[in-house]
Amino acid sequence: MDKKSFETISLIDGLHSTPSRRYLSDTPIPDEIIWNIIDAAIRGPSGGNKQGWVWMVIRDKNTKTKIAHWYLKNWNKVYGIRRKEILSGIDDDALGPKNFLSADHLANHIQDAPLWIIPVLRDVADSQDPRVGSSIYGAVQNLMLAARAYGIGSTLTALHSTNETQIKSLLNLPDDALTMAIIPLGYPVKGRWSQPKRKSVEEVTYWESWNVKRDRAKY
Amino acid sequence: MDKKSFETISLIDGLHSTPSRRYLSDTPIPDEIIWNIIDAAIRGPSGGNKQGWVWMVIRDKNTKTKIAHWYLKNWNKVYGIRRKEILSGIDDDALGPKNFLSADHLANHIQDAPLWIIPVLRDVADSQDPRVGSSIYGAVQNLMLAARAYGIGSTLTALHSTNETQIKSLLNLPDDALTMAIIPLGYPVKGRWSQPKRKSVEEVTYWESWNVKRDRAKY
Repeated sequence: MDKKSFETISLIDGLHSTPSRRYLSDTPIPDEIIWNIIDAAIRGPSGGNKQGWVWMVIRDKNTKTKIAHWYLKNWNKVYGIRRKEILSGIDDDALGPKNFLSADHLANHIQDAPLWIIPVLRDVADSQDPRVGSSIYGAVQNLMLAARAYGIGSTLTALHSTNETQIKSLLNLPDDALTMAIIPLGYPVKGRWSQPKRKSVEEVTYWESWNVKRDRAKY
Repeated sequence: MDKKSFETISLIDGLHSTPSRRYLSDTPIPDEIIWNIIDAAIRGPSGGNKQGWVWMVIRDKNTKTKIAHWYLKNWNKVYGIRRKEILSGIDDDALGPKNFLSADHLANHIQDAPLWIIPVLRDVADSQDPRVGSSIYGAVQNLMLAARAYGIGSTLTALHSTNETQIKSLLNLPDDALTMAIIPLGYPVKGRWSQPKRKSVEEVTYWESWNVKRDRAKY
């Protein structure tokens, strides 16, 4: 476990050091920790406090293997097919070579992550509202941050969504429910709790009106 | 500022003590803190690392007043019209009487919050994908947690969305962009950094298959 553990890591440090972790061991995660991270998740926002959410805990090898098959197929269709081009830089996909390799590793080993959590939203199966996720993805972020506090790595993935119908059937979900993500979790075996690399904050912050930027250094 | 300040609050404590804060003073928020909380936001997840996001900082009274007018109208249409019923409990809306009152206060005073942040996503204006928010609402949660570390309260609201066209025009947003929320921020004048009340974690956690619950106390 990381030195900055559950006991000591500050909120601000946690926000700055929770990258996607895609190289995970198969070491089981204790039930008590699973409860704790979901208990932190559900403190996240929910529109009108409706909490139309369910947190599916998946550890069954058979379930994971079936879904992993679809996941890998979708990964290969969207990214894998461009392997050479992304790794060589000919295709300057935002993912980049390093993230491509880790995401490719995950796609080929996602079934080995000891724990998946699949957040589900009720009554949105037919939703075409791009803002509907405001009632779940904040809680998902809480979940991944809580996991990080326990030294557990995770990634937010949605490449399963092509196979929504099959997955709903496999998990016995009701018709109105929608799987919002698959979050594979495990203790990391490679990589660090480093700050995710992003465009600079100056580049993506506009002041009062579109494209009006300011210089951070002035403050 | 809350005793558990920037310097000391732990990640886990922060996740459990960041409720919606809707009673806000008009005390300005220093620019340096604005940069810091957006810098924490952008460490959140972004599908394929695309980062198609922009963080609009709104402090202009004229802009806020215009949008607040639409916001209040939408609030009254969706919730305000049911005031008596929700407050009396005849309408057992998930919001509940206490949250109704604070949300009603916000709807009538949102323009007084010293700072709004409007997260915008590119290339999704016509999206009908209910999972598209997975590339912004995690970052929004980071933003609200970072604000909390500085003793600044916030709420995730989307009641503005009925007036998307007018708001895009007011902020000079490009056609392809979509405003994903309005987040009013300010130093709280009422309430506490208490744990948001939610359904119990046992009630919303299913194990392997739909509706299969377990008892947390056994662990």
